[in-house]
Amino acid sequence: MSEQRSTNIKWHEGLSRESRFEQLATKGATLWFTGLSGSGKSTVATALEKELIGRRRHAYRLDGDNLRHGLNSDLGFSPEDRSENIRRVGEVSVLLADSGCLVLSSFISPYQKDRDQIRELHKKHGLTFIEVFIDAPVEVCESRDPKGLYKKARAGEIESFTGISAPYEAPTSPELHIQTGSCSIEEAVQACIAALESLQILQAG
Amino acid sequence: MSEQRSTNIKWHEGLSRESRFEQLATKGATLWFTGLSGSGKSTVATALEKELIGRRRHAYRLDGDNLRHGLNSDLGFSPEDRSENIRRVGEVSVLLADSGCLVLSSFISPYQKDRDQIRELHKKHGLTFIEVFIDAPVEVCESRDPKGLYKKARAGEIESFTGISAPYEAPTSPELHIQTGSCSIEEAVQACIAALESLQILQAG
Repeated sequence: MSEQRSTNIKWHEGLSRESRFEQLATKGATLWFTGLSGSGKSTVATALEKELIGRRRHAYRLDGDNLRHGLNSDLGFSPEDRSENIRRVGEVSVLLADSGCLVLSSFISPYQKDRDQIRELHKKHGLTFIEVFIDAPVEVCESRDPKGLYKKARAGEIESFTGISAPYEAPTSPELHIQTGSCSIEEAVQACIAALESLQILQAG
Repeated sequence: MSEQRSTNIKWHEGLSRESRFEQLATKGATLWFTGLSGSGKSTVATALEKELIGRRRHAYRLDGDNLRHGLNSDLGFSPEDRSENIRRVGEVSVLLADSGCLVLSSFISPYQKDRDQIRELHKKHGLTFIEVFIDAPVEVCESRDPKGLYKKARAGEIESFTGISAPYEAPTSPELHIQTGSCSIEEAVQACIAALESLQILQAG
């Protein structure tokens, strides 16, 4: 079939996002959980992931644990590296959301500038970005101290620890503000679900 | 409800991959398309993506175009940067596959060592990696020259152009070997589908 050689490969347009989302009956988007260590970001994101998967919607958590060991394993904790870390997470969130996934990104991400940059990136790509402020007083977070990090920070073993020796800039206008000191995990999940429904990313149950 | 403060956040285990795949009726995996520029990698990947989405399976293409402008926009074309480029693509493929997506990664990726590294990464994460060698003689690729790159390479405007002035290491034992000079796009897609079915990643139709 050598006569076909130069004619049988044509350049195809990729599938449009609209077409992909429609056929998969999905809509990709990113929920960005920001808050102090111990505020409950991962807890809420994990519970929300279970709820979404139970509804047969592709959902996936991105967090320091699965990124710092892989994609971002070349990065340390200098200001430049922290910024590059968050930049890459933003880009990966966009790819996953573009694929049709509900991305649950859970990072302390203490700077408004960084979060705004990721919001802009989603906007540029026509993707929904939902900033979720997981809010708990630093005293509460410290009393939870699930990873023993506050203890280390107080002992001076960690420098630049957000909330103790480094600033946390609370979101100025998050789509969702969840105070984990005064609501249950289930209530936090329901607040996220309600936001997704009101944006028509999830069908109202 | 301040009395609940320190007790209402518990640390939850994330959903297991098995549970996610089962509930979503999916299995994530990576098909890695390697071959010369103009061999037909993107064409086959694009047609396969359409077929998979048509079957309501989450599938997503990764290629130089959507990564070089985003995640890897900080990288150039030095040997170190090329290697970092492929490393990141491998890590993102793992994340997408872990989410339940069929990842169609389409990169020249001329070095066996780089491809083996990505295969190992998938193995480490317990994810299926399918190396697809998209094979066409360099003369055929050059006659197609869809992006006008061979012309530029011949004019000396691109140094280290794979197949002309830089080596391409053909896969030594790819799961699939597709010769686009002697098969149709449809046949190439069917070969991929058959491989996915035989690995029980897709249900036999």
